[in-house]
Amino acid sequence: MSDLRLVHVVGTGLLGTSIGMALRSLDVDVTLADPSPSAVSLARDLGAGRVARDTEQQEPDLVVVAAPPDVAAEVVATALIAHPTSVVTDVASVKSAVLRRLRHLEADLTRYVGGHPMAGRERSGAVAGRADLFAGRPWVLTPTAETSPDAVAQVRSLAERLGSTVTLMDAREHDEAVAVVSHVPQVAASLVAARLREVSEQAAALCGQGIRDVTRIAAGDPALWTQILAGNAGAVARTLHAVRDDLDAVIAAVDALDSAADGDAPGARAAVAGLVAAGNDGHARIPGKHGAPPTAYASVPVIVPDRPGALARLLHDVGAAGVNLEDLRLEHSEGRPMAVAEIDVLPAAVPALVAALQERGWSVHD
Amino acid sequence: MSDLRLVHVVGTGLLGTSIGMALRSLDVDVTLADPSPSAVSLARDLGAGRVARDTEQQEPDLVVVAAPPDVAAEVVATALIAHPTSVVTDVASVKSAVLRRLRHLEADLTRYVGGHPMAGRERSGAVAGRADLFAGRPWVLTPTAETSPDAVAQVRSLAERLGSTVTLMDAREHDEAVAVVSHVPQVAASLVAARLREVSEQAAALCGQGIRDVTRIAAGDPALWTQILAGNAGAVARTLHAVRDDLDAVIAAVDALDSAADGDAPGARAAVAGLVAAGNDGHARIPGKHGAPPTAYASVPVIVPDRPGALARLLHDVGAAGVNLEDLRLEHSEGRPMAVAEIDVLPAAVPALVAALQERGWSVHD
Repeated sequence: MSDLRLVHVVGTGLLGTSIGMALRSLDVDVTLADPSPSAVSLARDLGAGRVARDTEQQEPDLVVVAAPPDVAAEVVATALIAHPTSVVTDVASVKSAVLRRLRHLEADLTRYVGGHPMAGRERSGAVAGRADLFAGRPWVLTPTAETSPDAVAQVRSLAERLGSTVTLMDAREHDEAVAVVSHVPQVAASLVAARLREVSEQAAALCGQGIRDVTRIAAGDPALWTQILAGNAGAVARTLHAVRDDLDAVIAAVDALDSAADGDAPGARAAVAGLVAAGNDGHARIPGKHGAPPTAYASVPVIVPDRPGALARLLHDVGAAGVNLEDLRLEHSEGRPMAVAEIDVLPAAVPALVAALQERGWSVHD
Repeated sequence: MSDLRLVHVVGTGLLGTSIGMALRSLDVDVTLADPSPSAVSLARDLGAGRVARDTEQQEPDLVVVAAPPDVAAEVVATALIAHPTSVVTDVASVKSAVLRRLRHLEADLTRYVGGHPMAGRERSGAVAGRADLFAGRPWVLTPTAETSPDAVAQVRSLAERLGSTVTLMDAREHDEAVAVVSHVPQVAASLVAARLREVSEQAAALCGQGIRDVTRIAAGDPALWTQILAGNAGAVARTLHAVRDDLDAVIAAVDALDSAADGDAPGARAAVAGLVAAGNDGHARIPGKHGAPPTAYASVPVIVPDRPGALARLLHDVGAAGVNLEDLRLEHSEGRPMAVAEIDVLPAAVPALVAALQERGWSVHD
């Protein structure tokens, strides 16, 4: 098994700082570097490691490049030369472009393992770093035919010690997958949210939980997302073209329904229903919690007054009923001092839960 | 103020049953009708009212038509004739098409008030009915120049007694608004989810919170959504054309980036960043909880073991720290027996909360 004694982290944003913090909590020695001296001091002060000096004697076992996607390849190539015996990995969310650039730079690919920890936050920067950022998240590694097995084992060891589940894919497979599960959803959220710029205050006030969920990630950083989408342009373009084909079919159908005098247009309703049904099928492929197949939990809605401790009291009462809560959503109510907590439990647990909560005075309906 | 003594509900699905339940809890007499005798008995057994007889002596103060959107106008027109002194409202999620059809049928529009309670659930049918379904939700009324003020007051009284916040709009404004805030988000969620049909198991396992949120509503019922989208074809088409214009610009940009030999394409990055920035601006228009402007809450992540009572203990400890929880999200971890609870609180409350939770042994980072 690979041993990590000294890890050098290049780039102290959210991911680099979080990796440093996590390794320090495992007593691994961590040196930090960043083009910005104040960024590297901040990461040090946050407990991510010590600042690397030019006079370091020992070669790191592993160099982690946590630079922005559009400079990742150059930083990896430099690290492979500066540390001629170290394994080098990166955390960029696109992998083919980095690999292509490394080949162009004639980098030593035996010691490089592409990586993508699928962890992130709505906040960025070192101050948002957390040692547990990677716990339970997928971490994709994209070794090539040239990569040495020892290098893969070293990076796998890093990911697993940080609590991630490692998945091996080739770079192209990775990029096609994240185009579908991450990059195109981001574009779709932005497209829907952009329409809200033009509506009246009164119309914006009608936003419910549906559009809130669809557009939550539309608050993402334009500069970062431009790098990611540009870095995965091929796969993103292929998926967006497929989306546009489906969109064109829906537009043709609603246009036909709109212009048909009697509201009827042959085939138009079937086209709309076909898209919604295709969405049902795709949605069913999202794995449930803990990697298990999606389970149909039953949802029990309970009114929660907007007072300190009210939700805690509710959850305490759920626990006291001996019921394991599978998921929980809070829906706040426009203009009312209350929220609705949707408690997901196994269907068999519903009757006992409803009875127990009603007995304790909760407003619950199922 | 309008008085409601007897309300007749036509159509005992989710909305009709919920309205009946809510009115019964206010001691209003409710009669129920539905084309399906078993559906109406079920609603009665659920406490939504009594089954209307052919021999009812008293005219209802109000008739609520809770029929599917594509038959709503016919049922309203029939009710206006059958109850020549009653006010009639409906709950269909599209309003112009219903009004147009009523004009065509030469219905008495002085006594008709179009309505749209913006409440719903992922489940449908009478058994999903709840008396509190409308609490804190918007309820749009779409009176016309012909509508009598007394009729509007009567329906407003219904909506407000059920806990809703009433918004008056004309039918066309309403339809344009819901196209943007509800119908097109549904199409976008289906478009994104549909792409998942083609990915490998390994790729589907990479689905994170982003795509889960974007596609949650993609599980909606194809038949119902086809009626809704077809019933609002004009406004949906206009919004979808605008979405396609934006999508075309992004596709042109990523196509250019993909085919540029050196990865550079003049203007392409600006086009991508422009869409994401437009999404930021649109997203910022979604009102925060309680109708207030969006507030930047701070999010505190805490690791929660997947054991009965763990979340309750955490929320109890949050309450004991004297901190008011503003929102809460649970993120389950692929392949790990734990979840991350993201607790949103006012930024000023963060240090005390973090200290209090750490003191009680919680793994919390901010």
